[in-house]
Amino acid sequence: MKMSEEEVREILDSLEFENGLAAAIVRDVGDGEVLMLAFMNEEAVLETLKTGIMHYWSRSREELWKKGEESGNLQRVREVRIDCDGDSLLFDVEPDGPACHKGYRSCFYRKVEDGELIEELERKFDPEEVYD
Amino acid sequence: MKMSEEEVREILDSLEFENGLAAAIVRDVGDGEVLMLAFMNEEAVLETLKTGIMHYWSRSREELWKKGEESGNLQRVREVRIDCDGDSLLFDVEPDGPACHKGYRSCFYRKVEDGELIEELERKFDPEEVYD
Repeated sequence: MKMSEEEVREILDSLEFENGLAAAIVRDVGDGEVLMLAFMNEEAVLETLKTGIMHYWSRSREELWKKGEESGNLQRVREVRIDCDGDSLLFDVEPDGPACHKGYRSCFYRKVEDGELIEELERKFDPEEVYD
Repeated sequence: MKMSEEEVREILDSLEFENGLAAAIVRDVGDGEVLMLAFMNEEAVLETLKTGIMHYWSRSREELWKKGEESGNLQRVREVRIDCDGDSLLFDVEPDGPACHKGYRSCFYRKVEDGELIEELERKFDPEEVYD
């Protein structure tokens, strides 16, 4: 999915950024699994919808972040939904690889079970081999 | 799912609240559909895990918010996952009714299609008949 700048501007008008940010939920379009949650500023939404590749705002690094730029695990946008308040977005993407920088397919690889936190997903890569 | 205060305290130790808040994604345990996104402070996580009923922090009203207290549409916790950074949670719930205060099953009832925002879900109730 790629949109013209004019089309994206119309979508941006429907958004209500909270302190400059909107929350983005990312699902795998293949099976609907939730892969991650990140935040987007206006520029990240613009870049994402214009290029069709997920971009976020990194709150820790305070910079635009093209997901997969280093790891190669780009996320290609297939569908976009916006919530009632316009401050959250739901993306269905085709991921080139695992979403989590810790090597898991989904960042939500830990589950509460019998009062404890357990890892329920298998690691797909070793982060030390992928990131500098 | 109900947890003891001691168990919840252990889970809280795994969380990293950002400005006092963590993001919560809520799915319907029945078919995995994403229903809403909201924020939780420590008290909301504590109340949610102790009672098994979803509680959030309302950023607009600046208060603890038991979802469904007015509408009757409680959300019962079935599963909880935490992301790699500990600042987002993923809940699978059994909802007593629609999640969206505008009367839709999911707050993400609007979808971008051909560059435009269209409503793709059917309204389940008229908000004026449910809320004062």
